[in-house]
Amino acid sequence: MAAKTFVYSFEKGDGKNKKLLGGKGANLCEMTQIGIPVPPGFVITTEACIEYLESGNKMPKGLMAQVKSHLSEVEKKTGKGFGDPKNPLLVSVRSGGALSMPGMMDTILNLGLNDETVAGLIKLTKDKRFVYDAYRRLLSLFAKIALDLDEEIFDRILEDEKKKNNAKFDTDLKADSWKSICDEYLKVIKKETKKPFPQDPMTQLQMAVEAVFRSWNVKRAVDYRRQFNITKDMAYGTAVNICTMVFGNMGDDSATGVGFTRDPGTGDNRLYGEYLINAQGEDVVAGIRTPKQFKEMRKDMPKAYRELLKLRQTLENHYREIQDFEFTIEKRKLWCLQTRNGKMNAQALVKTSNDMVNEGLISEHEAVMRIAPDALEQLLHPRLDPAAGATPLAVGIAASPGAAVGEVCFTADDAVAMAEQGHQLILVREETRPDDIHGMFAARGILTSRGGKTSHAAVVARGMGKPCVSGAENIHIDYGKKKVSMGGRQFGQGEVITIDGGTGAVYAGKVPTIEPEMTEDMLSILEMADEIRTLGVWANADTPEAAIRSRQLGAEGIGLCRTERMFNDPARLPIFQEMILADNDEDRQAAIDKLVPMQKEDFKEIFKAMAGLPVIIRLLDPPLHEFLPTIEELMVDIKRLREFTMFMSTVQELPETMKILDPKLLEYVPAMDTVIKDLSQIRSSGIDEDLLTRKEETLRKVRSLTEVNPMLGHRGVRLGISSPEIYDMQIQAILEATAECILDGVEVKPKIMIPQVCTAQELRWVHERTVRIHSEVEKRYKVKVKYFFGTMIEVVRACMRAGRLAEVAEFFSFGTNDLSQGTFSFSREDAENKFLPLYNERQILQDNPFEILDVKGVGRLIDITIEWARKTRPDIEIGICGEHGGNPRSIEFCHQVGMTYVSCSPLRVPVARLAAAHARLKEMAGDELKEALAKQL
Amino acid sequence: MAAKTFVYSFEKGDGKNKKLLGGKGANLCEMTQIGIPVPPGFVITTEACIEYLESGNKMPKGLMAQVKSHLSEVEKKTGKGFGDPKNPLLVSVRSGGALSMPGMMDTILNLGLNDETVAGLIKLTKDKRFVYDAYRRLLSLFAKIALDLDEEIFDRILEDEKKKNNAKFDTDLKADSWKSICDEYLKVIKKETKKPFPQDPMTQLQMAVEAVFRSWNVKRAVDYRRQFNITKDMAYGTAVNICTMVFGNMGDDSATGVGFTRDPGTGDNRLYGEYLINAQGEDVVAGIRTPKQFKEMRKDMPKAYRELLKLRQTLENHYREIQDFEFTIEKRKLWCLQTRNGKMNAQALVKTSNDMVNEGLISEHEAVMRIAPDALEQLLHPRLDPAAGATPLAVGIAASPGAAVGEVCFTADDAVAMAEQGHQLILVREETRPDDIHGMFAARGILTSRGGKTSHAAVVARGMGKPCVSGAENIHIDYGKKKVSMGGRQFGQGEVITIDGGTGAVYAGKVPTIEPEMTEDMLSILEMADEIRTLGVWANADTPEAAIRSRQLGAEGIGLCRTERMFNDPARLPIFQEMILADNDEDRQAAIDKLVPMQKEDFKEIFKAMAGLPVIIRLLDPPLHEFLPTIEELMVDIKRLREFTMFMSTVQELPETMKILDPKLLEYVPAMDTVIKDLSQIRSSGIDEDLLTRKEETLRKVRSLTEVNPMLGHRGVRLGISSPEIYDMQIQAILEATAECILDGVEVKPKIMIPQVCTAQELRWVHERTVRIHSEVEKRYKVKVKYFFGTMIEVVRACMRAGRLAEVAEFFSFGTNDLSQGTFSFSREDAENKFLPLYNERQILQDNPFEILDVKGVGRLIDITIEWARKTRPDIEIGICGEHGGNPRSIEFCHQVGMTYVSCSPLRVPVARLAAAHARLKEMAGDELKEALAKQL
Repeated sequence: MAAKTFVYSFEKGDGKNKKLLGGKGANLCEMTQIGIPVPPGFVITTEACIEYLESGNKMPKGLMAQVKSHLSEVEKKTGKGFGDPKNPLLVSVRSGGALSMPGMMDTILNLGLNDETVAGLIKLTKDKRFVYDAYRRLLSLFAKIALDLDEEIFDRILEDEKKKNNAKFDTDLKADSWKSICDEYLKVIKKETKKPFPQDPMTQLQMAVEAVFRSWNVKRAVDYRRQFNITKDMAYGTAVNICTMVFGNMGDDSATGVGFTRDPGTGDNRLYGEYLINAQGEDVVAGIRTPKQFKEMRKDMPKAYRELLKLRQTLENHYREIQDFEFTIEKRKLWCLQTRNGKMNAQALVKTSNDMVNEGLISEHEAVMRIAPDALEQLLHPRLDPAAGATPLAVGIAASPGAAVGEVCFTADDAVAMAEQGHQLILVREETRPDDIHGMFAARGILTSRGGKTSHAAVVARGMGKPCVSGAENIHIDYGKKKVSMGGRQFGQGEVITIDGGTGAVYAGKVPTIEPEMTEDMLSILEMADEIRTLGVWANADTPEAAIRSRQLGAEGIGLCRTERMFNDPARLPIFQEMILADNDEDRQAAIDKLVPMQKEDFKEIFKAMAGLPVIIRLLDPPLHEFLPTIEELMVDIKRLREFTMFMSTVQELPETMKILDPKLLEYVPAMDTVIKDLSQIRSSGIDEDLLTRKEETLRKVRSLTEVNPMLGHRGVRLGISSPEIYDMQIQAILEATAECILDGVEVKPKIMIPQVCTAQELRWVHERTVRIHSEVEKRYKVKVKYFFGTMIEVVRACMRAGRLAEVAEFFSFGTNDLSQGTFSFSREDAENKFLPLYNERQILQDNPFEILDVKGVGRLIDITIEWARKTRPDIEIGICGEHGGNPRSIEFCHQVGMTYVSCSPLRVPVARLAAAHARLKEMAGDELKEALAKQL
Repeated sequence: MAAKTFVYSFEKGDGKNKKLLGGKGANLCEMTQIGIPVPPGFVITTEACIEYLESGNKMPKGLMAQVKSHLSEVEKKTGKGFGDPKNPLLVSVRSGGALSMPGMMDTILNLGLNDETVAGLIKLTKDKRFVYDAYRRLLSLFAKIALDLDEEIFDRILEDEKKKNNAKFDTDLKADSWKSICDEYLKVIKKETKKPFPQDPMTQLQMAVEAVFRSWNVKRAVDYRRQFNITKDMAYGTAVNICTMVFGNMGDDSATGVGFTRDPGTGDNRLYGEYLINAQGEDVVAGIRTPKQFKEMRKDMPKAYRELLKLRQTLENHYREIQDFEFTIEKRKLWCLQTRNGKMNAQALVKTSNDMVNEGLISEHEAVMRIAPDALEQLLHPRLDPAAGATPLAVGIAASPGAAVGEVCFTADDAVAMAEQGHQLILVREETRPDDIHGMFAARGILTSRGGKTSHAAVVARGMGKPCVSGAENIHIDYGKKKVSMGGRQFGQGEVITIDGGTGAVYAGKVPTIEPEMTEDMLSILEMADEIRTLGVWANADTPEAAIRSRQLGAEGIGLCRTERMFNDPARLPIFQEMILADNDEDRQAAIDKLVPMQKEDFKEIFKAMAGLPVIIRLLDPPLHEFLPTIEELMVDIKRLREFTMFMSTVQELPETMKILDPKLLEYVPAMDTVIKDLSQIRSSGIDEDLLTRKEETLRKVRSLTEVNPMLGHRGVRLGISSPEIYDMQIQAILEATAECILDGVEVKPKIMIPQVCTAQELRWVHERTVRIHSEVEKRYKVKVKYFFGTMIEVVRACMRAGRLAEVAEFFSFGTNDLSQGTFSFSREDAENKFLPLYNERQILQDNPFEILDVKGVGRLIDITIEWARKTRPDIEIGICGEHGGNPRSIEFCHQVGMTYVSCSPLRVPVARLAAAHARLKEMAGDELKEALAKQL
């Protein structure tokens, strides 16, 4: 039996097979095969890695033989020999899984150097400094990755040498320094591992490959995969890329850099990136030296710059996505070392996607699919208000756009701890490393004092869509004291700052923000999405302002207008309380008569804002006690009022008392009288015994309304049935508003929705009253008033009775917040504070079911409900108005189960439009999709 | 087309067709046809009534013609003429629907009398007194029923006449009095209706028939049908029975009475009933005169008595059920006027059913079906403790057995109002009437000062299974003052009395009660039920005592053993609190180590009580705060402790203070020292600053555990996962108890049940720990320990995930209390106090879903759950342990959906056994049932 193929040369490997060759390896093959200058090399497959790991870290049989054979090929292509002191071949060894995991990569450079080849290479290049620099890089990387030694030891040796030589940068060190560093490194390795550094290049290579294999299971990689839910079928094992070394540090005609084919911060269609002259790749990425912009290269190295422009064109035409590539210029010759799809912030992603459609590079479907729906929301989040005129304390590099306000914090662990306590924070670090990832997840924004736009902090923050200011060199961090100083001020942990990732500015305190506008690019992408999607997108809006905003953002209706917020208005709350507290029908009716016109005006404004579009108005939902002060508040008030009353009577008796005590005191009486008069005015302004009585009555009422489990209490339709005057008033206001709008020539589609319904009889009960009020309104206004009548589905029993409810209801709207509570028997308020975090940690629940719809439980219930409802009323309109309506994964589910629309908060409307298009595209089967694409291209 | 047949003679009517002829009519036909002496007559069908009512009260075409024709037949049979003054035929007109509705009946007697026939009849009978008495009965009944006049007017005229003549009883009045009463009645009728009393007998008859038709829709009839859920397909319309009058009031050789073929109070196989000499039927039923027992008839009218014994035999042999019949003796000749199945209390029903099986009269299936399961429970309710030696204040007739304790109340409306406020009450009336039915439903027992065993109060109370003492003539009721006096004492509304319906005794206050034993008859019936049923019956029992009682009552296992009650034991609560409050693992473990042996002993005792039978133990369910004092309690304690501490320090400084104030006070110091020493002892006995600190810590903990919606909070398995030491302790105790029982030679079937589960992952999490603990216990005890692992299904999501849960769970137990709360989103505590009564009143919900399983909603969920669970694990054991497990209607549902068993409170076990048999019998299709019956007979 022929041995399995574990190794592919860049000329042979299948550039599409990322699962086998890893993303980086596949791209090296692909680039080689489309004629991009890639240094010769080959890839060891992920299968080899899996076999290694699953056999308990044993090298697969035949693997090293295949490696040797491919190495010979490379020797032939380069004319160099691996371990040959005369013309030594040096190679890099890099990991690379199927999915890009920034910072997770392990790289060893300059493999093949040993005491002999070092000597040979010095002879060959006549550059002792370069060769020892290369050797020390090999030694430290090999020590860290293959020998598992602490890199701090090596850093310290380097720093000591720099101090000794008064060198600021690595480049300031001379050849002898590098040589002595190498000697120190070799000593350390021998001391720590009890073995000398392996001089045999082949041993070096095998150890390096094994180390890369093992790196798949290091903690930070495992954490990253868990964080992003990367399962085995998405990526399993890492490939190993072995590539001929090229050197950007062979003098001032050499350089190394990273580039994007377009600007990943703005999306502008121009080459973007940075380079360092006389440096090796990781010097750029690590952010230790601040690199130069490309525009300088046009002057510095015009030929290489032209080659770079050509490379950019080749890459984009081939990949049809923005590429993030690494290159090295070795003595004026450009080599491309790696390419991958560029991570961009949302704005850039939207712009480039739209541009590429216009350039004919990609289809509309591709453009739409390319943008993660959630990404859109960051574009709609507030940005700093220029009118605030805030003066920055420091300015760094604008590494990831958006503004963030938060408390300063200095370590990833602190960030996590503070975030868990509900704080919003800015992670402040000199530079970030892969170990800091959990802290970056926890933070609202990242501020670093070192590193450029391609530093770890910048790349990761852009991937996360979080604002980042990097390389703010004029800030000074003292980790020990947990202080950062800038612009002459000091900030300790917990003090608030604001960063603007779009300008790089850092401000003290909280800077005010303003609402963003939708860009042309976003509008264009959303129009594409609208063409594709079949699911409606409506908004939850309780006020005319919110309705207008929703419509601007593309809402096709209002799926939930909560009427309780109207009663919480400070001008109305007292009247609503009057209604609740009335102890006879007359008083109650008087309060209601005041409320009807107010409600009506609200509805009219909303109807006008949504002219021509449906508006679902939910009748009162919360229990009445929510509109009254709490027991505690009332008890405090009553105590104060009692004291005041006692004080007042004492004061009023004072003159009399004074007279009795001593007639001489009488001369003070006129002054006292003034005081008493003042106090009486206070009394007449409402603080009197009546108020006390009223407060005491309110307290009694509040006590009688108190519930053990208010979430499952006397609310929604239950209240509508026990206090029918409230619903009657609301129905009347809605229908009168409709009539008046019709008379004003406005097209209105009002829909009356009943909350907390659990039996068809409840619905019928309210419906009968609605019919009666409707006919009265039609008579009074002499106009035909069309309305719809429907129900929330937020109680489990309503799901079970869907068929019967659909007999009465013309539409259903899933209230998945309450429905999830009922299905799980979780009280959200309690669960999120008590056991949900633990459930997530112990892997009992993957997601918070109040954020992401629980498809397996609640979803199953929804599925059954829709099926039963449609049996009764095939054309029933079914939507969702819980928070899940704005969550892309949940929206996909809503599309799959055949809902008519989702309704979400106004800002989520664009997200939902895009997510609905995604859901539709994912659903298209092979042929259907091809056909749709064919039509577009 | 031939006219529809609306009228059937007693000789022709189909005695089985109660729907058409009504229960009473069908029986009159049946009795006539089996040779029982029934006065000639005929029945107008319910169809005629329906046609009348549905046509807007128009007499169906041809009906009166058919009536006339049948009347001629009767004239022929009796040799009398309707309206013929020479020998007038008098008839009664009675309503009678398909179902017996006691007290709902309208009857008019002596129809056919008018001024002329009265004169003729006097001539014929030579008994003016009798004839005018008959006439006044016709007049008052006709006025009330056919003319809708207030009977009070007529009663008043009668009472006035009695007063005038110094008559105590009606029988004391002479002919002239009756005549003048008739004259007054005729005048009143003319005055009130503006028309004279119709002299034409045919007009009388038609008006009477129409009145009976209309009586179907009077309020009390409609109420009764609603109360008992009598739907149109069960009974619709009333038939009208027209029957030749026979007279029990034609002198001392005439009588009237009611009888039962066996004693409806005890079930004894002997003729039972009462009669009144020289009286008409309603005199007995109305309870106005206290009648004589049958044993007296043996002497008074030996021939009639023999005929009565023969009648009893004929009736029972034919009907094969206890009959409740009315009869009249007219000049020594016995006529049977009506028969129906006798209402009995549970004890009598059980005894007669068992007896009839033994007598070969009925099959076992019939006996079982005959007994409403709920009826059994009253037999198991406590009865008065003879050892209490209470002395009755009054003794009446033992009209319906059982003891009842309650607050006195005097009107049906008060009874309803008080019951709604949660009071238990005894309705005290001179006599009850159909208008009092709602009050009788609300009361725990009924006490009347008039009427016998067949009075309205007695009959209705027996039907309801409520204790009743009737005819307690030595009690005196003052409705105006709402007082009853007896035995020299007075009781106002709300004061407590006790009645014993088994002895007729009435006691002041609450008399202690004792547990009843099962009778042989009940055991026999339950054995029959066990033969039939396929559904298991288990019990909910938390203590060894309850387990023993359950087993005695026939439980085949324990379906729910709640462990939280074990921690609420006063000796253990402090240790459990220690565990909750422990702020380190060591202290927590110390508390746990104390709890394990306690739990283990509990389990061992229960296992031994249930040896050989399964015992399901539910791990801890309630949230931890339920085991701690409330915030309010703690705040009061803390306030007191602070005051005490302050007081103590003041006291201890006193001697010093005294010295400073005045050296002379020093002589008091020794006395003070004694006081201080005493107080110090109090301090050292636990009331010290430490206690204050502990209370304050507890308060902090309680505050941190407080939840907004505790019902949906941190409890059940959620607690089991967040505080795994609790479940570990319980699992260990269960498995160690099992091991120790096995070593003691006891057969144990322990089942560990997890509450509040909503995901399979929760179950797996606990299961893994169980497996580990199990293997430790097996190792430690060196014995094979078999156990089962299962879950409560009480969270809706668990239903949706039934298939996955069944992968881990070997059994399911539906916790329908919580499941109903989750399905309805009703908090039981809140709902039952707030909106559920209103929901019932407004017909939104027929039943309280926490008492009777909501088949349409919760039931549908259960149905789906079972289907999905059985797909995964076909043999999964599924039961119910919510309160519904003891409700017969709910048990029928459990049988239908294929549960393995129901589990209910011990006292409900017999009820459940019988209900399970009913469910099985109802399910048997025609042939299957016939076959089963054939095997028995």
